[in-house]
Amino acid sequence: MLIVHKYGGSSVAHASRIKQVAARVWQARREGNDVVVVVSAMGDTTDDLIALAGQVTAEPGKREMDQLLSTGEQVSIALLTMALQALGADAVSLTGRQAGIATDGVYGKAAITGIDTGRLRDELAAGRIAVVAGFQGLAPNGDVTTLGRGGSDTTAVALAIALRADRCEIFTDVEGVYTADPRVVPEAKKLPLISYDEMLELASLGAVVLHPRSVELAKLHGLPLVVRSSFNNKPGTFVRGDSGMERTHLVSGVAHDLNVAKVGLFDVLDQPGIAHRLFAALAAEQVNVDMIIQGATRNGQNDIAFTVKRDDLKRALAAVEAIKEAVGAKGYTYDDHVGKVSIVGAGMVTRPGVAAAMFEALAAEGINIEMISTSEIKVSCIVKEAEVPRAVRALHRRFGLDALGK
Amino acid sequence: MLIVHKYGGSSVAHASRIKQVAARVWQARREGNDVVVVVSAMGDTTDDLIALAGQVTAEPGKREMDQLLSTGEQVSIALLTMALQALGADAVSLTGRQAGIATDGVYGKAAITGIDTGRLRDELAAGRIAVVAGFQGLAPNGDVTTLGRGGSDTTAVALAIALRADRCEIFTDVEGVYTADPRVVPEAKKLPLISYDEMLELASLGAVVLHPRSVELAKLHGLPLVVRSSFNNKPGTFVRGDSGMERTHLVSGVAHDLNVAKVGLFDVLDQPGIAHRLFAALAAEQVNVDMIIQGATRNGQNDIAFTVKRDDLKRALAAVEAIKEAVGAKGYTYDDHVGKVSIVGAGMVTRPGVAAAMFEALAAEGINIEMISTSEIKVSCIVKEAEVPRAVRALHRRFGLDALGK
Repeated sequence: MLIVHKYGGSSVAHASRIKQVAARVWQARREGNDVVVVVSAMGDTTDDLIALAGQVTAEPGKREMDQLLSTGEQVSIALLTMALQALGADAVSLTGRQAGIATDGVYGKAAITGIDTGRLRDELAAGRIAVVAGFQGLAPNGDVTTLGRGGSDTTAVALAIALRADRCEIFTDVEGVYTADPRVVPEAKKLPLISYDEMLELASLGAVVLHPRSVELAKLHGLPLVVRSSFNNKPGTFVRGDSGMERTHLVSGVAHDLNVAKVGLFDVLDQPGIAHRLFAALAAEQVNVDMIIQGATRNGQNDIAFTVKRDDLKRALAAVEAIKEAVGAKGYTYDDHVGKVSIVGAGMVTRPGVAAAMFEALAAEGINIEMISTSEIKVSCIVKEAEVPRAVRALHRRFGLDALGK
Repeated sequence: MLIVHKYGGSSVAHASRIKQVAARVWQARREGNDVVVVVSAMGDTTDDLIALAGQVTAEPGKREMDQLLSTGEQVSIALLTMALQALGADAVSLTGRQAGIATDGVYGKAAITGIDTGRLRDELAAGRIAVVAGFQGLAPNGDVTTLGRGGSDTTAVALAIALRADRCEIFTDVEGVYTADPRVVPEAKKLPLISYDEMLELASLGAVVLHPRSVELAKLHGLPLVVRSSFNNKPGTFVRGDSGMERTHLVSGVAHDLNVAKVGLFDVLDQPGIAHRLFAALAAEQVNVDMIIQGATRNGQNDIAFTVKRDDLKRALAAVEAIKEAVGAKGYTYDDHVGKVSIVGAGMVTRPGVAAAMFEALAAEGINIEMISTSEIKVSCIVKEAEVPRAVRALHRRFGLDALGK
């Protein structure tokens, strides 16, 4: 089999962990597999480099930031390769450039445009373990470019697809994907299987184990992913096209996210183009809007509410302040003490009444729902921040997840 | 003019020094020059990376060490370029690969085989300051290779030659080349000019301001070098083909080196091939031998003495122990409390009696000479370590250097 391993920054944070990773990779190789390993920068290296740039200038250029940050992964690949060689393995480190990873050249958030797998295939054919720097690739002009958020996961998935690997294993500091955050719900269970779509919803809902970008890429090409711990040998969670022949549970997991703030505008004009003007103004401020609710029309006027990440609240309010008269709003309000609670399950598509059961469970706890948003496989509710843990536990119980695996 | 600047690790050790370097480079650019800057890794970065590798394995592979160490300069070029841009300069960082520096592919001590200056010339033509990573280049197989000792000086000189620069300025933590070490001789003077050959002798004699490798390269191509301080604006020392139309001083400087140990073998057989066997055995142990003295033959037997660096003494003695019977030595001795004192001056070639004047000056101080070695432009003597400072001061006075510049 050809397997791609990916290890994040905490898995290679210092020399002893790098040796542990080497032992695991060497084990996979000795079991007869061809192995490609993708690694992130060690621990806080990337943050340290960003801080260093901050000491030099308040506004570092993007090209130079990429030149700077890409060194972090280069250090990791060299050290992991040394550790593998010390175990007797034949291994070689490859930067993004050396691994043939081509990007579109957008500094700081490049997209992979193609992978020339020639050198990688040669190294594997020679029996070597290839240790590849995540998060980076070569721009058409010969510059180093980084892939931005989720970059190393994306590198691993893209390499696995280009090499037609049998699977891509993402090693991280959790044991897999859980039915809820174990810190909130002690009864939370690790899921043996989850579908790409469920994983995408969970990732975008704040339970970030895998970056959505990498999950989407895996889904597009049908590449099986495994999320597992880099600290033990437990099997982890498989992520693939279908999460099981026969679903026994409507809901696979309960996710929550506290990085949420709510903004509401009163009495906005009910005219074509008003929503567009509002959200274009937010987009111009680089604010990502999550949920949007538009109330029923009364007297030719609407209420509009939306949620943003808390970090973006200040910019969102600035945009609202600037646009409020143009959209005819009488005023606006905001609340950054809310949270989002969501249920996710591919089974929902074919079973009506899941949303109703969720609202009922929250009502039984006396929890008020401030906003609701639904997709085919998830239902999300905005509630008071203080009520989030109780909401998650109630939903985990209501949808039979407490009893899973017993 | 086209000028190449080179800044060592101490000149870019932290953010505030990087900003100082940026100000100096920007000044040179604003004076109308095209500027290429070569930088080393920040402060102790290289040592830190070597220590990190040591935590992973006792014997890191050379290829992976190069992959690891080359990140140090990449960090420096990105930060210096950011600092230049913050000042309003148009600047671009280039790794060895991006600067077109090709090497022979010998990991850890690569030689530069050529420089494709296309990108560099384009950047300069566009009015940009090019900030190039020292110490590294691209191997024919696409790997990163480091240039080993003196690597960044060599990068700067090689770039200056390839670009036909008007001069190469080496910025360092001393103000130039002195007639002696100012810590030993308070009267030591900074030399305004020195020849390549004198500089080469001084470098190999322990007064390491410029690595001999870079001086040889500059000499070969007639590239003028300037050694100057990165902390002030003083003019420094010019290094070029001739150190002046009319020499007024026989001796340009007095150098000393305490990293010396002496080994002597008694009663070695006086037969062809004996010296070869001894020194081949030392070479096989990677011991660099400096001075070699073979005494007059008595009864078909010789005494042989040689000096090595103190770090190499243990290996030298192991080699001697292994070979002593084969070369017929009755025994051997060693002394690691000696030092080397040397006078250097291109004027010696045409003026006899300089060596005699040196011996006379040392005798007048009651200093015993244990070994002597000469070249066309230098005379070196091994003396007791404790007598080195007194010897240096006596020679500095004897050859008129105390009175220089007064």
